[in-house]
Amino acid sequence: MPSTETPQEPPQLPDDVGLLSPAAAGSAVAAVTGDAAVLQAMLTAEAALVRAQVELGLAPGSAADAVTAAATRHDLGGFDLRSLARRARSGGNPVIPLVADLTAAVAAADPDAAAYVHRGATSQDIMDTALMLVAATALDLTLADLDRTATALARLATEHRDTVMPGRTLTQHAVPTTFGLKAAGWRSLVLDARARLAATRAALPAQLGGAAGTLAAFHAYAEADGAAPDPELGLRLLAAYARQTGLAEPALPWHALRTPVADLGAALAFSSGALGKIAADVLTLSRTEIGELGEGSGGGSSAMPHKANPVRATLIAATARQVPALACVLFGSLVAEDERPAGAWHAEWQPLREALRLVGGAARDAAELTEGLRVHPHRMRTNLDQTDGLIVTEHLAAAFGALIGRGQAKKALSRASVRALEQGRGLDQALAAQPELAGLLTEHRMRELTDPARYLGSSGALVDRALREAP
Amino acid sequence: MPSTETPQEPPQLPDDVGLLSPAAAGSAVAAVTGDAAVLQAMLTAEAALVRAQVELGLAPGSAADAVTAAATRHDLGGFDLRSLARRARSGGNPVIPLVADLTAAVAAADPDAAAYVHRGATSQDIMDTALMLVAATALDLTLADLDRTATALARLATEHRDTVMPGRTLTQHAVPTTFGLKAAGWRSLVLDARARLAATRAALPAQLGGAAGTLAAFHAYAEADGAAPDPELGLRLLAAYARQTGLAEPALPWHALRTPVADLGAALAFSSGALGKIAADVLTLSRTEIGELGEGSGGGSSAMPHKANPVRATLIAATARQVPALACVLFGSLVAEDERPAGAWHAEWQPLREALRLVGGAARDAAELTEGLRVHPHRMRTNLDQTDGLIVTEHLAAAFGALIGRGQAKKALSRASVRALEQGRGLDQALAAQPELAGLLTEHRMRELTDPARYLGSSGALVDRALREAP
Amino acid sequence: MPSTETPQEPPQLPDDVGLLSPAAAGSAVAAVTGDAAVLQAMLTAEAALVRAQVELGLAPGSAADAVTAAATRHDLGGFDLRSLARRARSGGNPVIPLVADLTAAVAAADPDAAAYVHRGATSQDIMDTALMLVAATALDLTLADLDRTATALARLATEHRDTVMPGRTLTQHAVPTTFGLKAAGWRSLVLDARARLAATRAALPAQLGGAAGTLAAFHAYAEADGAAPDPELGLRLLAAYARQTGLAEPALPWHALRTPVADLGAALAFSSGALGKIAADVLTLSRTEIGELGEGSGGGSSAMPHKANPVRATLIAATARQVPALACVLFGSLVAEDERPAGAWHAEWQPLREALRLVGGAARDAAELTEGLRVHPHRMRTNLDQTDGLIVTEHLAAAFGALIGRGQAKKALSRASVRALEQGRGLDQALAAQPELAGLLTEHRMRELTDPARYLGSSGALVDRALREAP
Amino acid sequence: MPSTETPQEPPQLPDDVGLLSPAAAGSAVAAVTGDAAVLQAMLTAEAALVRAQVELGLAPGSAADAVTAAATRHDLGGFDLRSLARRARSGGNPVIPLVADLTAAVAAADPDAAAYVHRGATSQDIMDTALMLVAATALDLTLADLDRTATALARLATEHRDTVMPGRTLTQHAVPTTFGLKAAGWRSLVLDARARLAATRAALPAQLGGAAGTLAAFHAYAEADGAAPDPELGLRLLAAYARQTGLAEPALPWHALRTPVADLGAALAFSSGALGKIAADVLTLSRTEIGELGEGSGGGSSAMPHKANPVRATLIAATARQVPALACVLFGSLVAEDERPAGAWHAEWQPLREALRLVGGAARDAAELTEGLRVHPHRMRTNLDQTDGLIVTEHLAAAFGALIGRGQAKKALSRASVRALEQGRGLDQALAAQPELAGLLTEHRMRELTDPARYLGSSGALVDRALREAP
Repeated sequence: MPSTETPQEPPQLPDDVGLLSPAAAGSAVAAVTGDAAVLQAMLTAEAALVRAQVELGLAPGSAADAVTAAATRHDLGGFDLRSLARRARSGGNPVIPLVADLTAAVAAADPDAAAYVHRGATSQDIMDTALMLVAATALDLTLADLDRTATALARLATEHRDTVMPGRTLTQHAVPTTFGLKAAGWRSLVLDARARLAATRAALPAQLGGAAGTLAAFHAYAEADGAAPDPELGLRLLAAYARQTGLAEPALPWHALRTPVADLGAALAFSSGALGKIAADVLTLSRTEIGELGEGSGGGSSAMPHKANPVRATLIAATARQVPALACVLFGSLVAEDERPAGAWHAEWQPLREALRLVGGAARDAAELTEGLRVHPHRMRTNLDQTDGLIVTEHLAAAFGALIGRGQAKKALSRASVRALEQGRGLDQALAAQPELAGLLTEHRMRELTDPARYLGSSGALVDRALREAP
Repeated sequence: MPSTETPQEPPQLPDDVGLLSPAAAGSAVAAVTGDAAVLQAMLTAEAALVRAQVELGLAPGSAADAVTAAATRHDLGGFDLRSLARRARSGGNPVIPLVADLTAAVAAADPDAAAYVHRGATSQDIMDTALMLVAATALDLTLADLDRTATALARLATEHRDTVMPGRTLTQHAVPTTFGLKAAGWRSLVLDARARLAATRAALPAQLGGAAGTLAAFHAYAEADGAAPDPELGLRLLAAYARQTGLAEPALPWHALRTPVADLGAALAFSSGALGKIAADVLTLSRTEIGELGEGSGGGSSAMPHKANPVRATLIAATARQVPALACVLFGSLVAEDERPAGAWHAEWQPLREALRLVGGAARDAAELTEGLRVHPHRMRTNLDQTDGLIVTEHLAAAFGALIGRGQAKKALSRASVRALEQGRGLDQALAAQPELAGLLTEHRMRELTDPARYLGSSGALVDRALREAP
Repeated sequence: MPSTETPQEPPQLPDDVGLLSPAAAGSAVAAVTGDAAVLQAMLTAEAALVRAQVELGLAPGSAADAVTAAATRHDLGGFDLRSLARRARSGGNPVIPLVADLTAAVAAADPDAAAYVHRGATSQDIMDTALMLVAATALDLTLADLDRTATALARLATEHRDTVMPGRTLTQHAVPTTFGLKAAGWRSLVLDARARLAATRAALPAQLGGAAGTLAAFHAYAEADGAAPDPELGLRLLAAYARQTGLAEPALPWHALRTPVADLGAALAFSSGALGKIAADVLTLSRTEIGELGEGSGGGSSAMPHKANPVRATLIAATARQVPALACVLFGSLVAEDERPAGAWHAEWQPLREALRLVGGAARDAAELTEGLRVHPHRMRTNLDQTDGLIVTEHLAAAFGALIGRGQAKKALSRASVRALEQGRGLDQALAAQPELAGLLTEHRMRELTDPARYLGSSGALVDRALREAP
Repeated sequence: MPSTETPQEPPQLPDDVGLLSPAAAGSAVAAVTGDAAVLQAMLTAEAALVRAQVELGLAPGSAADAVTAAATRHDLGGFDLRSLARRARSGGNPVIPLVADLTAAVAAADPDAAAYVHRGATSQDIMDTALMLVAATALDLTLADLDRTATALARLATEHRDTVMPGRTLTQHAVPTTFGLKAAGWRSLVLDARARLAATRAALPAQLGGAAGTLAAFHAYAEADGAAPDPELGLRLLAAYARQTGLAEPALPWHALRTPVADLGAALAFSSGALGKIAADVLTLSRTEIGELGEGSGGGSSAMPHKANPVRATLIAATARQVPALACVLFGSLVAEDERPAGAWHAEWQPLREALRLVGGAARDAAELTEGLRVHPHRMRTNLDQTDGLIVTEHLAAAFGALIGRGQAKKALSRASVRALEQGRGLDQALAAQPELAGLLTEHRMRELTDPARYLGSSGALVDRALREAP
């Protein structure tokens, strides 16, 4: 029966280099989440495991030296990523062929050390630890870009603390607000994202449990080597291994207790959405008709010479549409039967990597977007006037309500609003023509009441307080 | 053009009472998340808002009394849920008709108080606050059931600290483990869920921003009433309102900054998955052929008199399949354009309520499941023997490896394993027939090495440490 | 240990009546998907099963009469929905208590008939059939509203075949298009949704398999009653049952082959997205600054007297955010282990019902939205002019390109565009000042080239062709 | 401010080669969905567009030759994937830099032809067409593997038409079934997946609309070249372009009408779930304690020499957990505002490619799994006996019910079942000890009634009928 496998090797073109991921392509996060980085992290985990055993006197120092040397060769020169990926298919994960290749590489340099490669471990110990190492590096880069973003937003909020613009609800002008309050709100979301990612980052644990989470093989090797029985040997090894990897020490092996991965999913989905809110606002406010914001350098078009597209916001928005679904997969993998599940674990790898990459790319884009954002207070002011004063009807309702009762005031204002809209004239004229309101307030007071800049409530105080929140 | 609306009122049958939600039907959480509870919470929010204004001297105490009285009538007697639901359609949310009905109810008792109903607020202030109140109550109940579950699991882990059972990976026997370690792992997930829900619960904020988040209307009413300008009036009102509702005070109005809802989604999806892991294991281990666990009282069947189904685990598993998708919607709603989004906000209501209800139901089921779980150590032991000793080959590999080299030992054991499987005889006989292994170890040592109960690594120490983790 | 169950019965308030679902509340679809409708459908399925057995001579006609009578009592008077929902918890589904109640009701009227209630069936036979019946009714209503929507859109596309408006890409004006082409595109999506729902509707199958899908119990009862063995008895019964229910006959019992449910999920998610596209455009185009479209009757606001919100579009948008996630759960339930899965099946019920309800509500909203949509060609024209002619640079590029080469023309136009934008004057003036373009074309030709209404390509022909596609 | 971009180029290691995707790594589908394949498809689309214009007399034949030649160079030698991916970031899609590179490549060979590269098109025309071409190739390979799978399953269903095994519901033995019926059910799901994928495949459309879907630029170029106005020019070009690409002709440009992508999502999610059902059953039935099925060649373990893991089923299960979430993103992208959405379109690319790749890999795994599946009828028989006859209580209930009434029979059987389970003896003995049943039936009849192979209902007829369904 003919297989669908291509008989000959395909030409050695690069595989996925990010052609369909402009949000992340070429970013630092993309580099540290690539297959080469994952491979390096697996090697790092293998080496850390031997060093941890040396630390506890379970292996000779020379073994650690040999494995560490083999695991840190320049450019991963000795390992064939493509071959590993293909051979992963047989056992279902890439650690199995990697152990074979690493053992051979170590044996070539130090035959005695080879026996200590992966000794006592299971594939998942290495794979999980490697992905946590990759996540740690990716999150560190992402956090730095979120810091840049928060800084840029703090600057915008300060500068535009009193820049009046239309507040919009359900797409319609509601009452005035300030761009400073909007920027402060964006920043608070960025800080929320930062807090969630940083907490997850700090807790990323090493993984070590052996075949089924009891660490029994490590006991067995110690016993076979003549060591005295130590019922806590596994715990001490776990601590040493965590130290060697730089990751946190877990309370229990977590082969089937997937808190760290689910937490990553949650923090990444949150972050994609937090940045997505900024993007949604930028996309709206840079519409041709609105024009209150503009990206520092808009993207070109292959067809239209005049266009300057909000590309950074577009790519962030695209990310925000994807990461929640990836997190959905990761939450689903909490349901991990047995001591190692058949599928739930394997289903985590790509979504986790992709989520890290997308959010890392979005954080870079957000930093560039906010650092370069052009704000157009003049357009904000023009837009405020577009409803001919209707944006302050709530203000007028309060003032007139105190004089003629809330219900009657609301009715009169509604009538005046309709007339203003229908006749295309200003609200002030319509009000003047409304008999039950005419003459109730002085012209000066009416000017105050219809000035959007005098109807900003606590916006300034809110901005000030929000900016005091430390990043 | 004919509408699809039914012309006459449908008969007054109860609507959704949980017929399709056996996981939650009849639970305390179901009661506190029903439409009646939501309505009550909206009324509570309206009353709290008037009281907060009274606290700041912005309204007379009699208004607070009248609104509070109208908002706390027994059995919601004065409000017609069905009518509110239908009238919600026009403006897109149920607060608009509720304000009309509440105003009328207040006016009937105290005409002067009516003007203070909902004064300065926007629908979202009330709706968001109400849903946070509902979430608070639901989470309190859920946390109590998680505590019951954690207690039951601590007892199981203690009792079965040394109960040997097969560790299983990718569905196959791997090496021995203990039921105590499994139960301790389950408990650690329950504690993780508890921690996430409790942190979210504690942070649930009140919502108050007025039309577009500046709290301007409150300033306007104070101004119209002749109060001196106070640029921080909104902040002080927000604090008072939070106190009156018993919820946390947010740094900013969060009409379009949806951290609280996304956090609820994350914590609930996590919890559903954590409980789902327990359910997955119970479902597997109570399979007819495995029989290591049994639900305290299995569910009957409409067709087969002999069946005792693991119903609690089944319903928990069903929940774990649904909540991550609901969280996906809630994460998506972080992308909330403008000062109030057109759709993203409205898309939160049902998924949030359903997630609260499902997780509340699952927590109740988990409490009952773990409190009543029947453990069958005898079946665990029988199952361990099913591979005729193969489950300890890793132990033997370590022992023989120390004598004849790791590679050679592994090869010999693989050959013996295959022979044992093919010939249906025990591993010990197969080993005896393997020339390179014969006679290397004493019969006594071989008995030790092939005893699953002597190949448990650090499982006991892990259980002890995990149980020291406070709930 | 105290249970979280409330000890006393809660007051008999209505439960979920749609307070959080303004999109569906009060709709015909909401009525036919409520718990009462599901209960009626379960009763209908039970009655159909007895009649099918009568058809094949396996039961006396009097049994069918008695069960049918008990199953069709006015207003479901004899059955207590709340009690059924609570008792469903024990066995995990509501059919088990329903069979008990129905048997009692039948026995009261005709003791001999009671033995034929649910005879040979399993809970899933009834539950699945009932949900397919509910889906059938809900889809019929939904299809009618999609027809209304398609008709309204055909009218709009015809009327506005040549109404010029800005084409927008990545939020920016690109080149002119027509509102007719937009409406024709919306209609094509509605027809796509219609086709997918109608195909799924037509294929909705009855469910009958007995305990594990072999229909063995029906053979057993026939055998016990002395009938001659018939290896195809089950198939004939399945056909009769399908006829009695009005549903399609499945090739196999589908207890664990969930094609019909997954197909419903796909068609409903598609439909929610198709309508969501219309909503997204309406929301954008009715923004205060754009104003090209308006909902027939906008929704009011609880705070701002002047607002007219696009509420129908908002609620449709909210639906489009939810249904794909519900479909995700339904696709997930295809992974249904064994002859009846422990959880995957139970996880379908609520998401399926909610998806039917949401899409039904969205279809109603879409019909009202499109029938009442106000189109403002004048605003479209004003907006076209907002870029001072830049919207036709592509047209100019082609014309000048033919004269001076494509590359040079594009460069010159880019320079002129930048100048026009920076100096706030029209593109025509900027072009006149561009030396390499000056004088190349007559003034008349330039007027033609810069007229948006003369740069519409095949839009008219596309509309005409699209409208010829039958609904 | 320091950027997170790495200043120097990273070493030229391969990027993602499938290390985290063992399900797809090295497969034919992986090759045809890689970045190189996408690039080739974009080039193919660009060349087809020029040829289509030549076909209509809008461009000289030499232009088509030159572009086609540049677009089909061996090994994509002339184009730098990495550079394209990075430059895609600026405009948000890779077509923009590709057009620049392709134009340069064409100009080098034929300066006059360069003007015809991408003439009149927009990036999305090329990107969408390219992804449809990629999808077409991937689906063709996937369909072939589904055919292999269906063939293997037909063989298994035929061979095991009468192989008795326990039917299991909610994890417990229910009544007997046959492996043939199970395999026939699996096959019906595979055929359902096949039908959905094949229908989607056949409808995959080319994309061509120009800047905003009116095809105006093509009219403009024709006009500039002096052609007579033709209001249907765009339609004719669309038809020619579709022919040149081998894809279907769409009724309308679908830049913002995303039916084809949503349909792909639906069909792929369905297929992943259909195969996931098979995997779920194989995983269950190859559990150590059940052992009714075994993968042809199980996967090894890095820790345990005796293990043979169901790796193919595991990887298929992992796929089924991911694709529905990816489809959720694709359904979400139906909500595509304007003539080209800012984010919804960009969010499709990676999820679509990943879904194609995962399902392609799963189909390959399913073909290998089903072709090599080992069936153990002896273990099925042993397992049937595990409940000591309880699996046929339903059969007995029918027989005794006819004699002493259904209710009384059920009660007596329940009592006997409990006694059999508690005392660990066979149901036959327990029945003999049940006074109200004793002596009712002959020993011969009792043997018949308790033989699982005689309680299979219509299973044989169902298999026969299902196998008549053409693939």
